[in-house]
Amino acid sequence: MARPRSNYQPIDRTDTVRASKVTTSAEPLNLRGPRAQNVRWQEQDIDQAARAHLKGQQPCAIWFTGLSGAGKSTVANLVEKQLHASGRHTYLLDGDNVRHGLSCDLGFTDADRAENIRRVAEVARLMVDAGLIVLVALISPFRADRRIARELLGERGFFEVFVDAPLAVAESRDPKGLYRKARRGEIRNFTGIDSPYEPPEHPDLRLDTVRLDAEAAADVVLEALERAGIIGPGTT
Amino acid sequence: MARPRSNYQPIDRTDTVRASKVTTSAEPLNLRGPRAQNVRWQEQDIDQAARAHLKGQQPCAIWFTGLSGAGKSTVANLVEKQLHASGRHTYLLDGDNVRHGLSCDLGFTDADRAENIRRVAEVARLMVDAGLIVLVALISPFRADRRIARELLGERGFFEVFVDAPLAVAESRDPKGLYRKARRGEIRNFTGIDSPYEPPEHPDLRLDTVRLDAEAAADVVLEALERAGIIGPGTT
Repeated sequence: MARPRSNYQPIDRTDTVRASKVTTSAEPLNLRGPRAQNVRWQEQDIDQAARAHLKGQQPCAIWFTGLSGAGKSTVANLVEKQLHASGRHTYLLDGDNVRHGLSCDLGFTDADRAENIRRVAEVARLMVDAGLIVLVALISPFRADRRIARELLGERGFFEVFVDAPLAVAESRDPKGLYRKARRGEIRNFTGIDSPYEPPEHPDLRLDTVRLDAEAAADVVLEALERAGIIGPGTT
Repeated sequence: MARPRSNYQPIDRTDTVRASKVTTSAEPLNLRGPRAQNVRWQEQDIDQAARAHLKGQQPCAIWFTGLSGAGKSTVANLVEKQLHASGRHTYLLDGDNVRHGLSCDLGFTDADRAENIRRVAEVARLMVDAGLIVLVALISPFRADRRIARELLGERGFFEVFVDAPLAVAESRDPKGLYRKARRGEIRNFTGIDSPYEPPEHPDLRLDTVRLDAEAAADVVLEALERAGIIGPGTT
């Protein structure tokens, strides 16, 4: 049964924001304090509902979390191909690619990781507001950071997929040779080696990538999205 | 005559990025140095051309720059309404709204303004890569910062609209009461008062908002976008 997911939730605006009517759902959730106290929320006439209607789909961020080498990007890419083939408007925000652009000023300390995830979540939020289904492939190792992303996107705008592979398996795959470098000490703060990964306690979906190959995992994701009402029946 | 604008230009990737085939055009332009030296560009199968084809439009960032009170958001909002009505897939990135989210950690010093503009340009670049026509309404007072935005988005992915109003006119409008506060010294680094505005030397379009009302200005923008081949004929 499809549990219908409504448009992603409007978020309470801060005290400094006034608007006579609410026309957009990407309203501010200021986690850093009121730097922007003289900045008022700018009303916009074309809102998420209008864009979603034009696109005929339910905007949402599908958030793939897991170790390096677990298969996040591979599975997300396959899911996107399938969604695109069925006419959905999608975008894949890949952690590695964001690191070269929006977050190119950030390193891999805990604080920089948190800031990176905050920025990716903010971008995902804008894209969801723009009516897209956004696939996020990002290690996002800390529960607290993923919780911030969920809060930013709203319970119904955030679908967490735990791409699960034991460290030994991910390390044996080592598609980018990064575990080898991390073991040699050439990379610091590497998740699983000298920086922790906190697995989701209640993901919307867990993929066992030891048992499932990438194609099968993508099918499981699509079926779950259909069950959750994010995409209509018949995509899979 | 429509000058056809092709897809926004692929940007030379950094040395650290290797890919056997180029499948996305939002490749890295690392302006901050190689923090991400162990991060490789992740290939994606669904690229901008595929998304643009699905949407039937030419993705581009339409960048509205000008003083506070010049009419950037008002005109951009009217342009978006018109584009949306003709079935274009759009998004309005409004400077004030971004300040409440992605850039909520930034203030209004020159450095923070530059970082804010860089982030907005990166988001616009991702959205253009996602196939959208993005309207950016942002004071963006410094030429150097707008040049960075143009470089990030590529010459053909960036359409600069100078929303021109003399300071005296913008200040007399003062729709948010900010000039009054700035004159009293209650706001620091306010563009036009104690922080400079550098007008574009060669904007793609200049709107004289003393002569034109908002509706007429929006029509001028739409005609210019049509002339530039960003939107097909018949939208206006």
